[in-house]
Amino acid sequence: MTELNGLDATRLGEMLAAGEISAQDILDASLSRIDAREDSVRAWTWRSPTPDQTTAGQSAPQAPLRGIPVGVKDIMQTRDMPTGWGTRYLSAETSPCDAAAVALLRRAGAVLLGKTVSTELAGFTPGKTRNPHDLSRTPGGSSSGSAAAVADGMVPVALGTQTAGSIIRPASYCGVVGFKPSFGTVPMAGIKAFSPSLDTAGWFTRSVRDSRRVFGAMTASSLPVAAPPTLSQLRIGLAVVPVAGLEASTRQALDATGAALSQAGAQVMEAPLPEGFDELAALHKRIMAYEAARALADEYDRHHASIGPKVLEVLDEGWTIGYVDYRRDQKEAARLNDALAGCWQQLDVIITPSATGEAPIGHEATGDPIYSRAWTLPGLPAISLPLAKGPAGMPIGMQLIAPWGRDLELLDMAEAVMQSLQISVPLPA
Amino acid sequence: MTELNGLDATRLGEMLAAGEISAQDILDASLSRIDAREDSVRAWTWRSPTPDQTTAGQSAPQAPLRGIPVGVKDIMQTRDMPTGWGTRYLSAETSPCDAAAVALLRRAGAVLLGKTVSTELAGFTPGKTRNPHDLSRTPGGSSSGSAAAVADGMVPVALGTQTAGSIIRPASYCGVVGFKPSFGTVPMAGIKAFSPSLDTAGWFTRSVRDSRRVFGAMTASSLPVAAPPTLSQLRIGLAVVPVAGLEASTRQALDATGAALSQAGAQVMEAPLPEGFDELAALHKRIMAYEAARALADEYDRHHASIGPKVLEVLDEGWTIGYVDYRRDQKEAARLNDALAGCWQQLDVIITPSATGEAPIGHEATGDPIYSRAWTLPGLPAISLPLAKGPAGMPIGMQLIAPWGRDLELLDMAEAVMQSLQISVPLPA
Repeated sequence: MTELNGLDATRLGEMLAAGEISAQDILDASLSRIDAREDSVRAWTWRSPTPDQTTAGQSAPQAPLRGIPVGVKDIMQTRDMPTGWGTRYLSAETSPCDAAAVALLRRAGAVLLGKTVSTELAGFTPGKTRNPHDLSRTPGGSSSGSAAAVADGMVPVALGTQTAGSIIRPASYCGVVGFKPSFGTVPMAGIKAFSPSLDTAGWFTRSVRDSRRVFGAMTASSLPVAAPPTLSQLRIGLAVVPVAGLEASTRQALDATGAALSQAGAQVMEAPLPEGFDELAALHKRIMAYEAARALADEYDRHHASIGPKVLEVLDEGWTIGYVDYRRDQKEAARLNDALAGCWQQLDVIITPSATGEAPIGHEATGDPIYSRAWTLPGLPAISLPLAKGPAGMPIGMQLIAPWGRDLELLDMAEAVMQSLQISVPLPA
Repeated sequence: MTELNGLDATRLGEMLAAGEISAQDILDASLSRIDAREDSVRAWTWRSPTPDQTTAGQSAPQAPLRGIPVGVKDIMQTRDMPTGWGTRYLSAETSPCDAAAVALLRRAGAVLLGKTVSTELAGFTPGKTRNPHDLSRTPGGSSSGSAAAVADGMVPVALGTQTAGSIIRPASYCGVVGFKPSFGTVPMAGIKAFSPSLDTAGWFTRSVRDSRRVFGAMTASSLPVAAPPTLSQLRIGLAVVPVAGLEASTRQALDATGAALSQAGAQVMEAPLPEGFDELAALHKRIMAYEAARALADEYDRHHASIGPKVLEVLDEGWTIGYVDYRRDQKEAARLNDALAGCWQQLDVIITPSATGEAPIGHEATGDPIYSRAWTLPGLPAISLPLAKGPAGMPIGMQLIAPWGRDLELLDMAEAVMQSLQISVPLPA
């Protein structure tokens, strides 16, 4: 049944409802794929020897993820699996409660297969995961295992989190759909904090319609029926923030995307960003460091010698920043985001690169989150779509950004873009 | 050394620095008071048999809480004490890490004496605590034990959290200073979530200067020197939101406070609140219920039969609210808060009752958070000051409210008000 691995959760759900396949078939396909590929991809830090199908079996027939195998990032607490937080120095025990996001997955009928690799504390120290499209390259991070597991067809859905670019970048590198909702949409209860005003749970899928389906599961809500706009209804702004650092081929891919969408009838322009908007990326970095030092104060004080240098660097920077400077940075960030209101009067969506380019070669780093920082700071919803290929044939993602709270509209626009450009998400060759 | 129990942490710190007392003297005074009074007050759910003075001893001489005994609310994870979450059904084990707020307390030199009683999951089911000023009355909740422990002189500082009125109300009922910072100021990592867009860690103290001292500890920052304004520099708006429900004596206390501050030179007026501002209290209730259902999904699904009716009522309401309605409520709340900007152009601070009146008689409920809901929803900083007495001689608090992020200014204004009205915080008679 390996042919099931390339299908999205929506299609699997249809086949299940029609009696063409059973929940066991779906589970077996996932487990076979993991058995075949895990030694190469290394997406999992812990795999359930006997995945618990109880809650899935108890879920209503219309439950949005009924029988769908999922992976959850290893910074999310689980009551029946250990949580390692991407570290070796924090105890990897089971927790009294599931993280709220995990409980919501179970409610929606999902079958948890295990915990996916996170970088250390969701920071910049890589885990063991490799990019399924080229094992010599990073999958990105910090949600490394979740992105790779979905890209490789091991599971159709996996949860991640983003504080800088930890969903959007790995989605781009691995060639899948990665969605980061508006800040605050999914409860972070039971998920390790890094920078609490930025940390956002999101997910990886093979399609936009699946991303919308997971959105319904994670809000435990019946959503209105999807209504993708026609391209001619769309006002699209192209942006690169900050300008420096983008690879030429990615710049070309952005322009080509704009041209193709314009060709398809959309109104495409350069996004009229406010003066000084670039500064948001630097503000993000400082605010994240300030918050991470405090949120991880116990880890810093008691595990200092074990923390990797990439995480320590952020925490050490954070301790040099005081409250008064932090508030000033927050105020400046709010001012820049308020100034974006004028931009949103002229645009429905911003399209901007998800990362600087293709997934870098090597496993010593997870790539640069620079192209997510300015959008994550004000908590805007973002979705990375695998719209292009780079010079080495690796996927390149473009992210669509909408105003805070317009998540469903963003998903509708993303669906319209995918359909218009006839983008599919194939398994690795 | 019982005379130490009525002193604030700032005074104790001065005496310690001057060599007049030792850290052991401070600790002994706390422990003696707890021994003498705990059977009556019932503030603690767990007491450390041997309080750990290691981190306190290692702290720098200028550490803001060096040697100060503290209590922390039992929904905050601790690495060396069990956490019971105000329930009997969640396992009360120690956690791999301290909650960030607890780690920050230790960094500041505090000595943790134990965990203070929380209502069930910080909701509305009372714990065992009694009001130290009249044991037949509730201390308020959900931070019941922390408020009572400080009021009774067991510790000069205790941490709590507020989602509706869980710091401001018990501070008012117990006659102490209760501070709820701007939303997002203190990391909530390791603290049980109830409604993540509202949950805010704060603290109880015997003085405003102590509250500022704890603010420095919890932000791990050197703060600018306090600069209380003169009363003639203050533009004060009196408000009651919503109007219905306030006891006549509390209304009179508010007016008397306004008159006294006007007499002292402040410019006192009725706060020009935006049209429809009252609606924020109802919006708060719905938004809290929506979020609580999702944040506590695992508890709801696995411990349903054990959850008390007052918490279940909130969760059940939350499950009836869907994402689309939730977002509409959030948008309306943001609009009303934006409309408050006009008010802040005319005012420096709003003064409004902390609760409907004196602490109610009985222990079956913790009182009504109604007078905090409208201010907690937009995340505004609030401080309850024990400015009045009710008809039964019980304390009545008034809360001062400032714009988001103006926490230090609020603390300075609160100090000015306390000094001007010559308010002290005596031990219970």
